[in-house]
Amino acid sequence: MHTSSATDQPPPTAGTVDDETWQIRRSGADLDRLGETESIFALSNGWVGWRGVLDEGAPGEMPGSYVNGLHERREQTYPEEGYAFPQANDTVISAPNAALIRLWVDDEPLDISTGTLHRHERVLDLRTGVLRRETEWTSPAGRRVLIRSTRLVSLPRRPVAAVRYEVEPLDAPVELRVCSDLLANERVPERSDDPRAASVPTDPLTAEAHQANGLDGVLVHRTGRSEQRVAVAVSHLLDAPDTVTTTCDDVPDRVRLTVAGRLHPGERLRLTKFAAYECGPVDGPPADELADLVVAEADAARADGFDALLTDQRASLDAAWQVADVLLDGDAELQQAIRFAMFHLIQAGRPDGDRTISAKGLTGNGYDGHVMWDTETYVLPVLTYLAPAVARSALAWRHSHLPEARERAAELRLAGATFPWRTIGGRECSGYWPAGTAALHVNADIADAVLRYVAVTDDQRFLAEAGLELLVETARLWHGYGHWSETGAFHLHGVTGPDEYSALGDDNVFTNLMARRNLRGAADAAERHSDAAGRLGVDPAEIAGWRAAADALFIPYDSERGVHEQAAGFTRQPEWNFADTDEDDYPLLLHFPYLELYRKQVVKQADLVLAMQHCPGEFTAEEKARNFAYYEARTVRDSSLSAAPQAVLAAEVGHLDLAYDLFAESVTQDLADLGDKTADGLHLASLAGAWLALVQGFGGLRDDRGVLSFDPRLPRRIDRLSFSLRWRGHRLRVTLTPNEARYELPDAAPDATVELWHHGEHLRVTGTEAVTRPMPPVPDPGPEPPSPPGRRPDRRSAA
Amino acid sequence: MHTSSATDQPPPTAGTVDDETWQIRRSGADLDRLGETESIFALSNGWVGWRGVLDEGAPGEMPGSYVNGLHERREQTYPEEGYAFPQANDTVISAPNAALIRLWVDDEPLDISTGTLHRHERVLDLRTGVLRRETEWTSPAGRRVLIRSTRLVSLPRRPVAAVRYEVEPLDAPVELRVCSDLLANERVPERSDDPRAASVPTDPLTAEAHQANGLDGVLVHRTGRSEQRVAVAVSHLLDAPDTVTTTCDDVPDRVRLTVAGRLHPGERLRLTKFAAYECGPVDGPPADELADLVVAEADAARADGFDALLTDQRASLDAAWQVADVLLDGDAELQQAIRFAMFHLIQAGRPDGDRTISAKGLTGNGYDGHVMWDTETYVLPVLTYLAPAVARSALAWRHSHLPEARERAAELRLAGATFPWRTIGGRECSGYWPAGTAALHVNADIADAVLRYVAVTDDQRFLAEAGLELLVETARLWHGYGHWSETGAFHLHGVTGPDEYSALGDDNVFTNLMARRNLRGAADAAERHSDAAGRLGVDPAEIAGWRAAADALFIPYDSERGVHEQAAGFTRQPEWNFADTDEDDYPLLLHFPYLELYRKQVVKQADLVLAMQHCPGEFTAEEKARNFAYYEARTVRDSSLSAAPQAVLAAEVGHLDLAYDLFAESVTQDLADLGDKTADGLHLASLAGAWLALVQGFGGLRDDRGVLSFDPRLPRRIDRLSFSLRWRGHRLRVTLTPNEARYELPDAAPDATVELWHHGEHLRVTGTEAVTRPMPPVPDPGPEPPSPPGRRPDRRSAA
Repeated sequence: MHTSSATDQPPPTAGTVDDETWQIRRSGADLDRLGETESIFALSNGWVGWRGVLDEGAPGEMPGSYVNGLHERREQTYPEEGYAFPQANDTVISAPNAALIRLWVDDEPLDISTGTLHRHERVLDLRTGVLRRETEWTSPAGRRVLIRSTRLVSLPRRPVAAVRYEVEPLDAPVELRVCSDLLANERVPERSDDPRAASVPTDPLTAEAHQANGLDGVLVHRTGRSEQRVAVAVSHLLDAPDTVTTTCDDVPDRVRLTVAGRLHPGERLRLTKFAAYECGPVDGPPADELADLVVAEADAARADGFDALLTDQRASLDAAWQVADVLLDGDAELQQAIRFAMFHLIQAGRPDGDRTISAKGLTGNGYDGHVMWDTETYVLPVLTYLAPAVARSALAWRHSHLPEARERAAELRLAGATFPWRTIGGRECSGYWPAGTAALHVNADIADAVLRYVAVTDDQRFLAEAGLELLVETARLWHGYGHWSETGAFHLHGVTGPDEYSALGDDNVFTNLMARRNLRGAADAAERHSDAAGRLGVDPAEIAGWRAAADALFIPYDSERGVHEQAAGFTRQPEWNFADTDEDDYPLLLHFPYLELYRKQVVKQADLVLAMQHCPGEFTAEEKARNFAYYEARTVRDSSLSAAPQAVLAAEVGHLDLAYDLFAESVTQDLADLGDKTADGLHLASLAGAWLALVQGFGGLRDDRGVLSFDPRLPRRIDRLSFSLRWRGHRLRVTLTPNEARYELPDAAPDATVELWHHGEHLRVTGTEAVTRPMPPVPDPGPEPPSPPGRRPDRRSAA
Repeated sequence: MHTSSATDQPPPTAGTVDDETWQIRRSGADLDRLGETESIFALSNGWVGWRGVLDEGAPGEMPGSYVNGLHERREQTYPEEGYAFPQANDTVISAPNAALIRLWVDDEPLDISTGTLHRHERVLDLRTGVLRRETEWTSPAGRRVLIRSTRLVSLPRRPVAAVRYEVEPLDAPVELRVCSDLLANERVPERSDDPRAASVPTDPLTAEAHQANGLDGVLVHRTGRSEQRVAVAVSHLLDAPDTVTTTCDDVPDRVRLTVAGRLHPGERLRLTKFAAYECGPVDGPPADELADLVVAEADAARADGFDALLTDQRASLDAAWQVADVLLDGDAELQQAIRFAMFHLIQAGRPDGDRTISAKGLTGNGYDGHVMWDTETYVLPVLTYLAPAVARSALAWRHSHLPEARERAAELRLAGATFPWRTIGGRECSGYWPAGTAALHVNADIADAVLRYVAVTDDQRFLAEAGLELLVETARLWHGYGHWSETGAFHLHGVTGPDEYSALGDDNVFTNLMARRNLRGAADAAERHSDAAGRLGVDPAEIAGWRAAADALFIPYDSERGVHEQAAGFTRQPEWNFADTDEDDYPLLLHFPYLELYRKQVVKQADLVLAMQHCPGEFTAEEKARNFAYYEARTVRDSSLSAAPQAVLAAEVGHLDLAYDLFAESVTQDLADLGDKTADGLHLASLAGAWLALVQGFGGLRDDRGVLSFDPRLPRRIDRLSFSLRWRGHRLRVTLTPNEARYELPDAAPDATVELWHHGEHLRVTGTEAVTRPMPPVPDPGPEPPSPPGRRPDRRSAA
C-alpha cells in the first residue's frame, strides 16, 4: 500500500538524494547522436534558448542560439501559383551565439572526436536547471586536461544566459588558450530533403554595431525583410593564475575574448561568461540603446555572480516543480521521462510578455521554427493548469496578431479572422494550402485555449481585454464559412482536419465540434462582457446566429457501422492495404502520394479520437468505445501528435495497457528519438501530450464543461500517480493508487475550496481537509482493439 | 433555298475571288497587340513553328522559333515537398530563329514604332499558307522605303521554312543594309505573374558547331538537362543590283548574312532565305551529321526555289481544305473565324512521325509549351475525322512514352500506367498535384482518343501495335485504383475531374464514364487482338475484371434535384454567391482561394456537360436537359475549354441561340483575344472545340457507340452549314439547311458505302448517290436556362 506515503513524501524540492529520475545523463562521445543530444540538452527560458551544443561548438550537428520570435522572412515560390498562396515564409534564425568557448591545448584544439577521450559526461539537471559537463581528454600530442562546465539559461532573468568553464592540466604543464566567442551568422549546415526539416538562410544578420571593451563585448545586428534588431552582450569573470594574458577584440560578426597562458597541474583556469539577449523591431529602440541595455543586463548578472544565478535558478524551478512535478511510481524510466518532459515545458514559455511557444520551442529549427496548432491544442492545455500566466502570454501573442489574421481572412474572402497554420511573425507561411489554409480548425483551437484559460483561472479581465476579441473574430469566421443545408443543418465543407492523411473533407467532426465550442464560447463571453462585445460590433442578433449555427452543426455518423465518420464519407472510403505495406513503408508520407493517402481510410494521427479527447461530452461511452476501436485499427501514428490523444481515449474506454504503452511512446518521443527527428528540436506537443495522457487518461480529468471532473483509473504498471494542477488560484494535488484517489489543496488557506467530481460524485476539497475516495473497478472493455499490423506501440505495460 | 447549291458550289480550292473569309488581315502598327498578332500569324507545319513576329524582330512581344518537342528540363522546388512531387519541369525553348531579317536605311534601323508609317499591313492567307507583309515607311531621317515579305513554313517539307524579303527606296537613293540572322538564345522577355504564363530559361542552348559559308550558314546547339540537339541551316538567294556587297559571318550563337549597298528608286533588293530545322537526342546523330543534314535540306529548298515552295504549300493546303473546310452561310465573320481555326489545326500536326500537339501548338510558350489532356479531348476528336494520320502520330507519341507512364504509376504505387498531366518529354511536370496527379481522367482521355481513331479508321494494325497497349495499361490503372463498395458498386475516390474549380472528389461522373469506356474498350480490343493482348499478359480473367468494374462503376445522381452530381455530393455543396461577385472578380481563380472555389457549386469549365458530350449514350434526353440547365447556371467559363462542350449540349437540348453564342465564343477565342491570353499562343482546344460545336452541336454527330449518327438542327443564324469528315477512308460531306440534310461521298468510287443514322433513321450513302432527308422541327425546349449573372456569352444569335 502506497497510499499513506502520498502526503508524507517530502516535496521534490526538498530532496537531497541524487535521484537519477531528476537527471538526464549522456556519457561518451556518441558522435552519431550529436543532434539529438543538442536538442535534449537545450536550455531555455522562453526568451533565450541555447541548444545543447558542446562548449567548443564542434563536433556538433546544428548550432542554435535563439531569441523567441527572431526570424527572417524569405520569398516563397510555387511551381504553380495560386490566389493567396503565401509569398513569403518566416524561418527561425540564430541570434549571435554566446555559448561558445573554444580551447587549444598546446595549439591543438579540444575536439572529442580526436585524441583520447578518457571521460566525457554531460548531465542535464532537471532540479537545478543547469547543464553540466565534465571531460577528461588527452590531445593527439599527449597533453591531458580536465574540462568542466556549467551552463544555464536563467529562468528568472529573461535576457540572461551564462556558462562557467574550467580547465586544468592533469599530467604536465601545458599552454592553454581559451577563446570565448560571441558569434553572429554561425554556419548552420543544410539539412536533409525531409519536408519536415528546416531550410536555413545563410548570413541572415547584418551587423549594426560591435564593440569589445576589457573582458566584455556587444554585437547589434538586424535582419533583412523581417526588420528585427537583436543585441547580445557578454561579460566575463576570469579566475586564473596571474601569468595568463587576455585580449578582447571585435569584428562585425564576432566578439572574442582570448585567455592564454601556461598552466601547471594543480592550477586551474576558470572563465565565467554572462550573456544578455534583447530583440525588437528595427523601428523600436535604436542599436545603441539596445546595446546599452544588454551591456547593463550582462554586467548586472556578472556583478551578482554565477552562484547567485544558480541559486535563483533553483528557486524558480522549485516553485515550478511544486505544481509541475508528477510522481509515477512503478516505472523509474518513465518517471524520469515525464520529468524531462515537464522540465522542457517549464522552460519553454514565460509568464511575462506576449511571446508564444513554437512547435520545437527554442530547442531547434525544425518546421522552420514555426508556431503551429500544437501550441493551443497540446501545450497550452497543460500550461493552463500548471503555469496559467505562461498560457496567458501565449494567447496574448495570438491577440497581438489579430490584425494579420483579419487581413488574411479578408484576403481569403472569409469573415472574421483566420489565424495562420504556420508562422513566426504572424502571417500565414504554409506553402501547401490543403494542409495549411484549409485546416481552419486552428482558429477553434485558439478559441478553445482561451476558453480553457478563462475556465481555469476565471481571468475575466483577460477575457474582456483580449480573449473576447479572439472568440468573436473566430466565431465570425465559422458563422460566415458554414453552409445551411435545406434540412436545417449547418455544414463546414472542404476543410482539413487534424489528420494529415486526409484533406479537404466535409464536416470533419473535430473541426465541427470545436467550431461549436468556439461559437458558443463567443456567445457566452459576449453576453458576459456585453460592453466590450458592443465595441466589437457584436449585437444580440449576431450572438443568436452563433448559437443557432452551433446547435445545428452537422456531425456525420455512420449508423451502419455505429461509428462517427472522421469527416463525411470517411468510413466508406477504401481501406488501406496493410497486408502489402512493409515496415519500411513508414512513415507512409515518405512512400505514398497524397493521392493514395487521402482517399483511403488510413489515419496519420488522432482526429476523431482527438475530437473525443477535446469534446468528451459530445459522445456517449458506447460511441467512444466503438469509435476508438474503429480508428485504432486505422491509425498508423506517423505523427508524434497522435500517441497522447490515443492514450487518453484508450484509458477512458478501459484499455489501460494500451493507454500506458501509448503514454510511454509519447513521453519517450525525444529521449528515445522515436521519430529520428529529435535532432531538429524537441516535440513539445508530444511531451505535453504525455502529461495529458497521465492526467486526462489515467487521472480522467475532463474539463470541457468548465467544471473539474476526474474519472481516474490506473494501469497495472503504475503503483501511484500524483500530480497537481491549478484551479482558480489553488493548487489541487491528486494522488491515485489502485485503491484510492486523494484530492487535496496542500498550499491553500483553510477556507479555500475547490469543487470537483470524482467518477460522477460531487466533492468539495478545502484547505483543511483532503478528500479520499475509492477507485471503482475498471469495467472489462473486452479484448484490446487491434492496431494496424506492426503499429501497436511497444509493450511496456506488461513488463 | 440553298440546298441545291451545296453540291454545285465550286470547291474552295478553285476559288479565285479574293474572299476575306480566307484571310486574316491586320493593318497599322497596333503596338498594343503585338503579342496577340504574333500568335495569330504563327506559321507551323507540326514540326517547325515560327511565331508571327515582324521580320525585323522588333517591336515584338515574344520571339518564338520552335521545333516540336524541343525543350529544357529544369529543377522544380516546392515550399513543402511531398512524395512523388515532380522534381523537374519541362519548358519549351526556342530553336535558333531563322526568321529574322533586319534592315537599316541610311544607318537607321527599320522600326515601325519610329519614323512615319504610311502603310503597314500583314495578311495571313489561309488558302496559300503564307504570311504576307507590306510596309511603307519613312525613316526619322526622311528616307522612304517599301518593304514586302512573304513567309511560309512548308507543310509538305517537314524541316523547311522560308522567307522572301524585298526592299526598295521610294523617293531617293538610300544606303540599305539587310542583315539576315540565324540567332540562337534570342532574348525572351519575362512575362507576367499569371500562373498560366510560362517562365522562360535564359540561354538554354549551348553551341556545338557554327559555320558560315558564302550565303549560307549552320548552327548546331544542344540543351542541358533535356539532352537534345538542334541544328538549323540557312541558305540564301540574293537578287539585287550588282553594287551591293555581301558578307556572312558566324559566332557560336549566330550566323549573319549582311547585304549592303546604295539603291536608287526603281531598284529592289530581294533576299530569299531557306531554313531547315532538325532536332534529336544528344545520343542520336552527332552534331556534324545533323549539320550536314540541315544544310542539305536548306540547299535543296533553295535549289527548288521559293515559288516551288509556294506551289507545294498551296497543293498541300488544297488537299487539307478539301476535308477541313466548313461552310457557314449567314455569318461572314464566323465563317472567317472557323477557317482561321481550321487553318491552325491543319498546321499544328503532322501525319509522319510520333510528335503530338501541345496546348498552344507551335504558336507560343504558354503553359510552358506543355501537352495536356486538351490534345486527346478536343484536338484529336477533330483531327481523327479530318486528318486521321495526324491523330495517329499524336497517339504514337503517347505510346512512345508508355515507359515513363508505367514508371510514374509505379512511383505513385498505382497499377498499369498513368500519363502525365503536363509534359513535353514524357514525364509528369505538374507542380500542383490536386489538379495534376489527381486528374487521372487524362488516361481515359487518351484511351478514348485511341478508340475513336480505331472506330473512324478501322486501323487494326495501329490498334494491335500500339493502341492496345495504351488501352490495356490504362484499364489496369482504373481496375487497380477503384474500390468495390459493400453494395457491389465500383468507385473512383479522390480524383479531380475536368473542372478546375473542384478537386479531389469521389466518383466524378466524367472520369467514371470515361473510365468505363476505357475498361470496355480495352476488353474489346484485347479480345479482338488476343495474341497481342497475351503478350501484354492479359488473360480472360483480367478482361472479365475490367468488364465487371466497368459495369459496376458508380454514377452519382441526385434524385431529389433530378440531376447528376458532377462528383458525389456536388449538388449539396454551398452555392456560389453570384450576387456579391463583381465583374472584376473574374476569372475567379485570380480573386478567390481554392478553399472557396473547391467547396462551392461553381464550375470553371464543362465537366458534367463534358461527360454528356463525350458519353451521350449514358444519359437520357430528359437528364441531359435537366443537367444542362443545372450546370449552365453554375458554370462561369473561366476556361477557354468550356464554351464548346456547352455549345454541343445546348444544341442537343434545343437551346440553339445559346449554342450559337457559345460556338461564337469558342471560335473567336483568339481572333478576339477573349481571354487576353492569346499572346502566349493560340488556344488550339478552343479552336478545335469550335468545329465540335458545329459538327456535334448543329450537325448532331454522335460517335460514342462506334457508329456514325447525326441529329442535325440549325440555329437561326446559319443558313447553310456544310462540313466533311473521313469515315473508314471515305470523305463524307454533310450539308445542312433549315429544311434539309444532305449526305454524300463526293470523292468516292461508285461502290463505296457509308452507313449512318439521321435522327434515328438508318441511311446508306454511296459513291453514286447523295441522300437527303428533311430536318425535323426542333422541339420547344422552353425558356433558355440562365447562365450566372453577367456570364452568358455575347448575344450574336439574334443579330
